[in-house]
Amino acid sequence: MFAWNDPDAGLKVAVFGSGGGIGRAFVAELASRPGVRRVYACSRTAAGDDSQPGADSVTRIATDVGSEAALEKAAAEIDGPLDMILVASGVLHTPEVRPERRLREFDPDAMLEIYRVNAVAPALVAKHFLPKLDGGRHTVFAALAARVGSIADNRLGGWLSYRASKAALVMALKTIAIEHARNRPTSLVVGLHPGTVDTPLSRPFSGRVPKDKLFSPEQSVRYLLDVVDRLTPADTGGHFAWDGSRIEY
Amino acid sequence: MFAWNDPDAGLKVAVFGSGGGIGRAFVAELASRPGVRRVYACSRTAAGDDSQPGADSVTRIATDVGSEAALEKAAAEIDGPLDMILVASGVLHTPEVRPERRLREFDPDAMLEIYRVNAVAPALVAKHFLPKLDGGRHTVFAALAARVGSIADNRLGGWLSYRASKAALVMALKTIAIEHARNRPTSLVVGLHPGTVDTPLSRPFSGRVPKDKLFSPEQSVRYLLDVVDRLTPADTGGHFAWDGSRIEY
Repeated sequence: MFAWNDPDAGLKVAVFGSGGGIGRAFVAELASRPGVRRVYACSRTAAGDDSQPGADSVTRIATDVGSEAALEKAAAEIDGPLDMILVASGVLHTPEVRPERRLREFDPDAMLEIYRVNAVAPALVAKHFLPKLDGGRHTVFAALAARVGSIADNRLGGWLSYRASKAALVMALKTIAIEHARNRPTSLVVGLHPGTVDTPLSRPFSGRVPKDKLFSPEQSVRYLLDVVDRLTPADTGGHFAWDGSRIEY
Repeated sequence: MFAWNDPDAGLKVAVFGSGGGIGRAFVAELASRPGVRRVYACSRTAAGDDSQPGADSVTRIATDVGSEAALEKAAAEIDGPLDMILVASGVLHTPEVRPERRLREFDPDAMLEIYRVNAVAPALVAKHFLPKLDGGRHTVFAALAARVGSIADNRLGGWLSYRASKAALVMALKTIAIEHARNRPTSLVVGLHPGTVDTPLSRPFSGRVPKDKLFSPEQSVRYLLDVVDRLTPADTGGHFAWDGSRIEY
């Protein structure tokens, strides 16, 4: 449980992929909470809206989650320890290749690129930023996974490259969680499924989603912060949906 | 159930990665069975031992499981339909980077390369060869997965890149299985865990494996062919160990 409403809590959070729909909403929501002293908003361009409420507690950092050198440089700019790290970067498909409906549409270069962004980059952020999580209290590293990244839950097929990348991400988070728990048993590593969120990523595919199941980014991040709040050490390595339910692997 | 011992069965099988320890053993074992008319042994060099029993039923094809053009060319050399396709290619690590014991050893370029070989390549083989599986009888596409690719079974951590690539492979196989079953309900797609096999891949890491759990490649492939024999359509998309047990995702 984070002391979101306690002005003396002095919470510090880093958000990666803060240029995307969900990342931007995380930054705005966190910056508006009294308990948060500092939000490090990390994105490729470090652009953002400085007229928003709470913008004075936001530090914008330009980095590239795919580059070790860039992440090392970003790590040096952050005044730790941190309470939470959120990785909200991710792609559903590449500009050239749409998500596969059928195997014959699958492109190996696109599959590699989607993996680089969705699985390799979050692991690279973990490598460089996990040591910044406060080991003395409840702290969390969370990356956006996805229900379609559940192998057991896969009943429709399709979206081969995206599904494979997210299953790999869930495995990477579990692997990282096990090692991290040995040194810092109160510090958790999890995957989060944000629901279907109305962002450029999902818009072309959300037409058939019922209106009450299509969340705004603001709604989704409030749900996810509630989920993160309720996590216990036994949850580390897990994959959780916006409503707090555990998603099977 | 394949009619391995019926000389009139005329079974045709393709093995990819036939230059590796397990792939080579698959080729030798299959070529020795009376029911098998033709084994297409696909590897980068197409090298092999033509003095082995049954070598006259082996057709060696040089191909590259990472290249669409090379696989298209190989597909044209195979006189289908096929009864079984086995993908036995795979790497545990790259020449430069050992399997990670800790997150700080993780190298993003190695993680991508391991994914390319272990997950992308089998999907690419499926794209080009699944249409060759006979749709009128029990036929099987199987790729070598691994118990350490089970997210649920991961209790020790480590081997981040390998684990992530194999979890992604299991997801890819499940995704492909669902689509394939719509058109060819008697044709299955599965992942197989060969056990710990005494090959160059596992040798540096098998020191602590009890001797009766360290299989020769010949033993392992006989176990796996027994497993493949007993599969039913309900098993498609699953991940099975050498003893026939289903591995959780």
